[in-house]
Amino acid sequence: VSIENLYEQLTTALQANADLGAALRLLQWDQETYMPPGVAAGRARHIGALAATLHERRTTAGFLDLIDELWSQRNGLAPWQLVDVRETKWRTDRQRALDTALVRERSVLHAEARAVWVGARAGDDFAALAPYLERIVETERRVAACIDTDRDAYEVLLEGYEPGMTVARLDSCFAELRAGLQPLVEALDESASAGAPTALEGSFPLDQQRTFNQRVLERIGFDFKRGRLDVAAHPFSMSIGGDVRLTTRYDPGDLRYSLYSTIHEGGHGLYEQGLDATAWGLPRGEPCSLGVHESQSRFWENNVARSAGFWQHFLPAAKESFPSLDSASLGDVLHSVNKAKPSLIRTESDEIRYNLHILLRYELERALIEGTLLARDLPAAWREGMSSFLGVVPQSDRDGVLQDVHWASGAIGYFPTYTLGNIYAAELASAAEQSVGPLHDLLARGEFHVLLDWLRRKIHRRGQTLRAHELITEAIGREPTPASLLKHLDETLRLLQAS
Amino acid sequence: VSIENLYEQLTTALQANADLGAALRLLQWDQETYMPPGVAAGRARHIGALAATLHERRTTAGFLDLIDELWSQRNGLAPWQLVDVRETKWRTDRQRALDTALVRERSVLHAEARAVWVGARAGDDFAALAPYLERIVETERRVAACIDTDRDAYEVLLEGYEPGMTVARLDSCFAELRAGLQPLVEALDESASAGAPTALEGSFPLDQQRTFNQRVLERIGFDFKRGRLDVAAHPFSMSIGGDVRLTTRYDPGDLRYSLYSTIHEGGHGLYEQGLDATAWGLPRGEPCSLGVHESQSRFWENNVARSAGFWQHFLPAAKESFPSLDSASLGDVLHSVNKAKPSLIRTESDEIRYNLHILLRYELERALIEGTLLARDLPAAWREGMSSFLGVVPQSDRDGVLQDVHWASGAIGYFPTYTLGNIYAAELASAAEQSVGPLHDLLARGEFHVLLDWLRRKIHRRGQTLRAHELITEAIGREPTPASLLKHLDETLRLLQAS
Repeated sequence: VSIENLYEQLTTALQANADLGAALRLLQWDQETYMPPGVAAGRARHIGALAATLHERRTTAGFLDLIDELWSQRNGLAPWQLVDVRETKWRTDRQRALDTALVRERSVLHAEARAVWVGARAGDDFAALAPYLERIVETERRVAACIDTDRDAYEVLLEGYEPGMTVARLDSCFAELRAGLQPLVEALDESASAGAPTALEGSFPLDQQRTFNQRVLERIGFDFKRGRLDVAAHPFSMSIGGDVRLTTRYDPGDLRYSLYSTIHEGGHGLYEQGLDATAWGLPRGEPCSLGVHESQSRFWENNVARSAGFWQHFLPAAKESFPSLDSASLGDVLHSVNKAKPSLIRTESDEIRYNLHILLRYELERALIEGTLLARDLPAAWREGMSSFLGVVPQSDRDGVLQDVHWASGAIGYFPTYTLGNIYAAELASAAEQSVGPLHDLLARGEFHVLLDWLRRKIHRRGQTLRAHELITEAIGREPTPASLLKHLDETLRLLQAS
Repeated sequence: VSIENLYEQLTTALQANADLGAALRLLQWDQETYMPPGVAAGRARHIGALAATLHERRTTAGFLDLIDELWSQRNGLAPWQLVDVRETKWRTDRQRALDTALVRERSVLHAEARAVWVGARAGDDFAALAPYLERIVETERRVAACIDTDRDAYEVLLEGYEPGMTVARLDSCFAELRAGLQPLVEALDESASAGAPTALEGSFPLDQQRTFNQRVLERIGFDFKRGRLDVAAHPFSMSIGGDVRLTTRYDPGDLRYSLYSTIHEGGHGLYEQGLDATAWGLPRGEPCSLGVHESQSRFWENNVARSAGFWQHFLPAAKESFPSLDSASLGDVLHSVNKAKPSLIRTESDEIRYNLHILLRYELERALIEGTLLARDLPAAWREGMSSFLGVVPQSDRDGVLQDVHWASGAIGYFPTYTLGNIYAAELASAAEQSVGPLHDLLARGEFHVLLDWLRRKIHRRGQTLRAHELITEAIGREPTPASLLKHLDETLRLLQAS
């Protein structure tokens, strides 16, 4: 069998699996959007059956042998073929390291814990969740040990979300970020803004919000012929083979929530729509990492849509849609969309403090995996951490350690990708500016396609050709650091102080 | 291995396949409701991959051996277990006759042809669709030959929709029906009603139509906790494991279209929601046949919702919802919902002429499969047939051979099940009346649950315990004939002549 033929077999198998994966994602999208309330148990079973089928296909002896054979002959592969083989082997090696019993046990545990979390959060009852978190920590440690007994367990888990990332790199990067954020937060606290409603609080009818959101998405380049915008309780985006389903939710009294969640999800969607469709289902045609994915959402949400240039372009259209904006100045709107106040809740945090929420979670989840913190002691550690990182302390676990679903879903090592996304987004915005000229002027002229084209070339079309750190390094011409993010946040602070 | 254990293995496999089948149906439902226009090719591929996976699972050596083993030991099975084994073996024997390549090719062809049909119908461009229809006919012939080379190819295809039905039985039944319809249609033509708008034509705002439809569905027993009502270009219903998705479309100037398509699809939905959920995925818990399925939709649409009793119950609520009905009498409404005029379009046909549309399609599709008619000659054959069966001739293919999606979806042998459904529905209505008392009074009192309970016991809960012809025979106490349908249509004619 020639190596070309082996590679052909690999693409056929990967693309068929990607087709099944698309079906799986439609089940999940529908579950959060249009599924009637009384059929959840059946839906869980349908999802379980399809996930099990995919897992079987990815771990059959024939598939594993095919990959090993391609890997042993990798010197005969073209560079782009090598990407597909290398990344498939890497993922497959992680999967085959876990025996079926562990995979099953873990997925049952996650499903149970997630259900328990819903009740625990509603009832502010951490004790109900604690034993599940203990088992999750213990199971994730076993997972890490199966994959690589010699490496730091947390790093092995982290790599499941951000391949190639190391704890050493995160530690140094996050330390620099924390040091840089400290003075910004202190300055913020001194210039605490008044409680009066800002320009984007008021009366914003839902139909007009929907239309305005669609207009903004279209203008920044989202292709509605290959995507939709719907409503979900917790906004998310999902790609069903390049058919990108965005969701948001609407608050008739505040334009910001739906607009910025729409643009955030839209950024994820632009990435998915910009992947190389000719490499569908192959690593070359798939998103690079969660951190890079998040960089795309944050780029459009924060670096583009909270800027003066963006609103210079969109304020006239916004005024047409919303009479309540009649007398709002550009400065009023910029103040409204950047307004900062300390929040206990990560997803409600302002942009400047947001990463401190993540750094706390990073510290805690590392300690959990290292065994220096027990799951049952999380509430106390959380309060202490909030006080130290953000200077506020939650009165309840509901507004504290129970606020996020991640740990209860078994996702340990995921949180850092949010801050990596912010760091990458700021670096990309800065590099794009050097390449295509001042962003403010570009955005004010509504030339969003120039930015999108740049991202398409530097990020979207590259798929998994490089690992995240290398991809960003290549795109910006040097190693990424938190400096651009800190500079961007400093500008945000000054904008707020001026308003 | 004990026979109990073998049967247990069968149920596990069938139920996992049913879970994957639910995912497949969600892909199809979404394709017709919320899928954006530019992703049809990808969706066709996702559907193809899942259909192929299902086919593989249903034809693995292990599964085939299991069924053969159970079949050889069938004397040791309880009667209800024997139903599952018998029907699974019958379906499996049909499937194992087709190789995976043919299954995949067929499913991709159908998805592509369906997309082409949408454009061809919109542009009245039969030539665009013709090559696809030719390939579909040729593929269906191959399918029939794989399943049974010795039998009539059309009958083999027909059995895919109506197991146990024969061409001989259809021919004699349809001949009796056509003969009986002839005088009714002649009488109709003589008493052609005036062109003035009827009571349900006027101004019917969409939101109120939607609300009224939902109210009617709830009242007749549809469970919205396990179902939805959405909009689609061509109304259909689909069950995703008991999660029943109905669709309709709205005409603001005519209440009848959305109301009767909603009730029709609702009848299908009541059947799906009434299946034995404890036998999910097993033949005992699945619909008996398409003919029986259609009998459930026609029962509620025609035998219930076009009757005086139904409107006696619902007219007050309709008047509340629609001011334009203020002065409408019961007689006005009955005239409106039964009004007859020759139509070129099957789905817009009055009840009396409807089956003639089907008899024409039956004749044409048999000729296509026999090879006495070529797909490219369909437009001419269609016009000739319309003239002979219905005395009207379409000016365009859009209003002619392009009106239905069935052939373009690969469904040849499907159309007869509509008329079988009408025949069975009339037989069931007549038998129900003998069992529970005069339907008019029951409906006027709004006691729809009595009828639903009767159908639940006689039809829904029976699943595939018996083949369609036998199930109806048992339910009505004798063999079904077109007599009840002709009697019902004669009553409709007299109602129209009186108004």
